[in-house]
Amino acid sequence: METAASSIRVVLVGARNPLNIGAAARALSNFGLTDLVLVDPYDPSWREAKSAMGGKGLLASARVVGSVQEATADCSLVVGTASVGDRLLKLSVRRLEQGAKLIRRHRGRVAILFGSEKTGLSNEDLSQCHWLLRIPTRREHESMNLGQAVAVCAYELAGRDGAAVKAAPVDQQAIEALELNRIGDRLFEILAISGYVQPKTSDSTRLKVRRLLRRMDLKASDAELWLGILRQIGWKLNQQS
Amino acid sequence: METAASSIRVVLVGARNPLNIGAAARALSNFGLTDLVLVDPYDPSWREAKSAMGGKGLLASARVVGSVQEATADCSLVVGTASVGDRLLKLSVRRLEQGAKLIRRHRGRVAILFGSEKTGLSNEDLSQCHWLLRIPTRREHESMNLGQAVAVCAYELAGRDGAAVKAAPVDQQAIEALELNRIGDRLFEILAISGYVQPKTSDSTRLKVRRLLRRMDLKASDAELWLGILRQIGWKLNQQS
Repeated sequence: METAASSIRVVLVGARNPLNIGAAARALSNFGLTDLVLVDPYDPSWREAKSAMGGKGLLASARVVGSVQEATADCSLVVGTASVGDRLLKLSVRRLEQGAKLIRRHRGRVAILFGSEKTGLSNEDLSQCHWLLRIPTRREHESMNLGQAVAVCAYELAGRDGAAVKAAPVDQQAIEALELNRIGDRLFEILAISGYVQPKTSDSTRLKVRRLLRRMDLKASDAELWLGILRQIGWKLNQQS
Repeated sequence: METAASSIRVVLVGARNPLNIGAAARALSNFGLTDLVLVDPYDPSWREAKSAMGGKGLLASARVVGSVQEATADCSLVVGTASVGDRLLKLSVRRLEQGAKLIRRHRGRVAILFGSEKTGLSNEDLSQCHWLLRIPTRREHESMNLGQAVAVCAYELAGRDGAAVKAAPVDQQAIEALELNRIGDRLFEILAISGYVQPKTSDSTRLKVRRLLRRMDLKASDAELWLGILRQIGWKLNQQS
């Protein structure tokens, strides 16, 4: 469990309520999760939450960054949390129990994203996710309080089997988000030069490409190979245009 | 699950914080637990919590009674929750997961008691319990926020047996070899035009591309998308050369 828990990062995106930020941090500490990152928290809330803790505990060591991309750069699995509802998503959804098992077994760092209390995760945030985790609340009252959702996930993620998770050989490790985004950007460039990208739908095509890459299980050791391939194609296209 | 959930009563004993009372009620509702009883809540807190809900939801139908005895009179199993610590207890303690299983299997009404935020359950309260439920928090930080403790218990009590994992929807099925080879051939063509393929190592590059594609977990539903992307790049390269 120790190994597993220490490679799980919890990312709160755009949190607005200081009580929820504090409650989330407390629950993570209860279950031994120590890596907390806040993306763009509402500033007064963040300061209030921190000062309520007297500069101690998990909030004192939490990092604040400006984007989900930055928060997840060194993660090879990025999982969103969602009450899904009827939003049409091209992401597969796993129930918390099954999803937590996959996360604990994952070789490499995992980020779990929680959206803001009001709006949840944006489509932009979701385009950084490999899949979604759903807490099995009942349909008539799906939406959970943020602090409680974090607590339930932390409880399940901490695991109950204490099974030692072994490190995978390097060449089977999943690719990190930073590399994946480099590949995505390069592919998008090539598609733009090729005329695959229409100006009107450019943003949605960018998200489509990101999601496409995340539906594959790219290995870290293949990142260079892919970048080499795409670089060569891009070079040829640029040379000719 | 329906039967089980409806025979579980959650009892908050001496709760003092209106936010916690509201949060507890919300979590119970999230997981389909509908029987909430408050023993001797701090009166202003109780009124504040209720008014915050606008007289709707679980708090509107919650009962307030004067003692644990009264709250549990019609229950055949009474379970206390505790972070145990070093208090000397003559009660057996079960971890949440095991305990929740026993509770769901119990024939008859079950009461789960949660103590106040400050003092937990008194020895008097504990004397009404058959055994104790322990949420497996880590020793260094055992004590959970009341609303979060209720959420984690409600999640586990609601049960996860819905287990039946359904077959993957069509769009998550793995790609068939025929399609994979079409994609591989198309990619190889593009690489040849781009100058990535050296005549001397052409055969080995072809195999390298095939293996690369097989190391990814391509989905059947993405085959067309990939072929479209590669067709467009190939068209552009051919047009220019």
